[in-house]
Amino acid sequence: MTRRNLLYAQSGGVTAVINATAAAVIEAARRHPQAIGSVYGARHGILGALAEDLVDTAVLDDAALAALALTPGGAFGSCRFDLDSPEDNPAQYDRLFAVLAAHDIGFLLYNGGNGSMDTVAKISAAAQQRGYPLVAIGVPKTVDNDLEGSDCSPGFGSAAKYVATAMLEAGMDLASMSGRKGRVFVMEVMGRNAGWLAAATALAARGREDAPPHIILLPEVPFEDEVFLARVRETVERLGYCTITVSEGIRRADGSLVMEQDHDTKGHVQLGGAGQCIARLIHARLGYKHHWAIPDYLQRAAGHLVSATDLAQARAVGSAAVEYAVHGRDAVMPAIVRESDEPYRWRVEAVDVRAIANLERCVPAHYIRADGLHVTEAALRYLQPLIEGEVPRPWRGGLPDYPQPELPPVARKLPPQR
Amino acid sequence: MTRRNLLYAQSGGVTAVINATAAAVIEAARRHPQAIGSVYGARHGILGALAEDLVDTAVLDDAALAALALTPGGAFGSCRFDLDSPEDNPAQYDRLFAVLAAHDIGFLLYNGGNGSMDTVAKISAAAQQRGYPLVAIGVPKTVDNDLEGSDCSPGFGSAAKYVATAMLEAGMDLASMSGRKGRVFVMEVMGRNAGWLAAATALAARGREDAPPHIILLPEVPFEDEVFLARVRETVERLGYCTITVSEGIRRADGSLVMEQDHDTKGHVQLGGAGQCIARLIHARLGYKHHWAIPDYLQRAAGHLVSATDLAQARAVGSAAVEYAVHGRDAVMPAIVRESDEPYRWRVEAVDVRAIANLERCVPAHYIRADGLHVTEAALRYLQPLIEGEVPRPWRGGLPDYPQPELPPVARKLPPQR
Repeated sequence: MTRRNLLYAQSGGVTAVINATAAAVIEAARRHPQAIGSVYGARHGILGALAEDLVDTAVLDDAALAALALTPGGAFGSCRFDLDSPEDNPAQYDRLFAVLAAHDIGFLLYNGGNGSMDTVAKISAAAQQRGYPLVAIGVPKTVDNDLEGSDCSPGFGSAAKYVATAMLEAGMDLASMSGRKGRVFVMEVMGRNAGWLAAATALAARGREDAPPHIILLPEVPFEDEVFLARVRETVERLGYCTITVSEGIRRADGSLVMEQDHDTKGHVQLGGAGQCIARLIHARLGYKHHWAIPDYLQRAAGHLVSATDLAQARAVGSAAVEYAVHGRDAVMPAIVRESDEPYRWRVEAVDVRAIANLERCVPAHYIRADGLHVTEAALRYLQPLIEGEVPRPWRGGLPDYPQPELPPVARKLPPQR
Repeated sequence: MTRRNLLYAQSGGVTAVINATAAAVIEAARRHPQAIGSVYGARHGILGALAEDLVDTAVLDDAALAALALTPGGAFGSCRFDLDSPEDNPAQYDRLFAVLAAHDIGFLLYNGGNGSMDTVAKISAAAQQRGYPLVAIGVPKTVDNDLEGSDCSPGFGSAAKYVATAMLEAGMDLASMSGRKGRVFVMEVMGRNAGWLAAATALAARGREDAPPHIILLPEVPFEDEVFLARVRETVERLGYCTITVSEGIRRADGSLVMEQDHDTKGHVQLGGAGQCIARLIHARLGYKHHWAIPDYLQRAAGHLVSATDLAQARAVGSAAVEYAVHGRDAVMPAIVRESDEPYRWRVEAVDVRAIANLERCVPAHYIRADGLHVTEAALRYLQPLIEGEVPRPWRGGLPDYPQPELPPVARKLPPQR
């Protein structure tokens, strides 16, 4: 068997556990010294591959890999960049395969979301067409949980744990401040088209009646001002306060984004996030005191609050991807298959990247309450195991101890990219 | 010695450790059964005292108190309400003292910030004038850290740990996403007049050159657009990205709030938080991709990320307040006195509430870097010990296990408040 090198790269928005996948890839590759030579990383995803900007992971010892696995962000750098089609831009593929050939890359592992699976499919097809011997594997990650073909996506569980914890804690704060005037708190979470993270905040209630979040606005449900405002008023009149989770991407029935649709009293468009728009709408119409939070990157970078389930799955897909690679299973992605909710059991199975590339899995109708303003018990059963388990981690000086290893560059063999 | 009852109440914005103070008060009071009878809590601060809306803490056993100490929010409810002056509104004081007398309250402990110390001073003076035997004690708490007379305030250290962790983690996320186009991330933290929480994000850098946060905008320093933008550009050109902490209350040299001053291209005022305004200013002038986060209540409610130092101090001021009470030390507040930075040593000492009421302690000049865009080594030495130490806590179902005890109401003895 010929030893060939493995190239790993990260793509799209990073997560709190994407480096756990990276660490698992490197560890698994080292278990196959006859098949896999060096494990390189591309800096900033496919851009680094095109630029021949590669780093060598050989310097990472076991302790460094263990620490890397508990470090948020993308240790290799990520990118938001799609390859052109081979027909439109053959030169791009010429360059890519020149870099792969120069470094004897026989295995390409691309760690990303829907778009990245498309990249894997394109590279796999191009390799076959060119007769370049390559096994290209997609490795899932996305806090949005919108990857088709997998029961859930690594990165989502930790972000879900973060936003559910945030709603639980902020809800307790708001409850103590509530008084006769009524207060509302709005938290805007990530999710342009898929409301998985918004739905996950429902876990904060733990089944308690009237506990936060009182309302969840999903992008899957058209936003109707009057229906929403009536529920807010009813909640405040009953409890003294109301907590609301808003997906950043909620839209009105005509398809327009709520975040672009808020108008001031003179009719001028007010640009702002969905959370701010919703908070202002409530204040303008109902007069309640309003606060809004936008965790933004905090929700996907919270290495201090990783879900043990999520971490285990992030590692499992990394290991499985390497196994698929050495077995020559080209153009697949290791997906999570759920075997049971309680006790939670799952396994990893290969799916064809061409069957799932560019698709987007939204929150299904049976997870959305009939009134469109919350989620169902079925949704909670799905979500609950994904946030379970805490991960002990090193701290230093009161902060998480995140190593930021400097990986040595791989010597360039080609002229610079044109 | 006559046994009299103790009334404890919470006021102002709540914190992640205010209930630790409450638990310490209750525990300490139980150590003085000859002096202190029942320990009551007023619902929603002084409002509950006026409304005779009291609860009895006797049902809380040791385990419940230990759990309470690790629970964020205000377990008794808080309020934003100032007493009138006795001259303007004697009836308010008549009612207050009628409630105190009806329940034989001999000790009043008010847990709050600057305004609450004024309330304590007013009640103390009124009691003396009326000949009502009362020991009134102020107990410090504020995430803003702006209480005069104390080296730091319980609640601040945990919020500081939260915002420093958030900047560390979000900074790593941004660094992995940075590319040729330049990216900026702005995090808006609490602090209308005092920039302590903004300053605390500097701890995220851990002394590393060029690490986030690259710029800190404090309310103590007049905001100058051009100086700021030049630094952002310089940072992005050097590093590819720039992270910025903004105090919600930053102002321009003319005293106007930045958050009210942003204009769109047609000259319309855009209302928005300081973080959003700063992010938009950068995007409009420099064209960089921009993200902004507003942790809002999350930063002061994060019971999952409490500082062990802060927790210890929150408990210590609660215990000390009870000791002062039983020793008849009226109108004082237990303050934190720093004995040394490293090793960090501190003690609790009584200060006169009348000397500190309504004052506001801002970040001093020697903590602010000469360019006004960051903090000094002296600031870091002050801040570092306050975020140190992690607190093990119970979790359930993937979330912090926060009990929400229902305390039985104390039977009313008076007609309703008019």
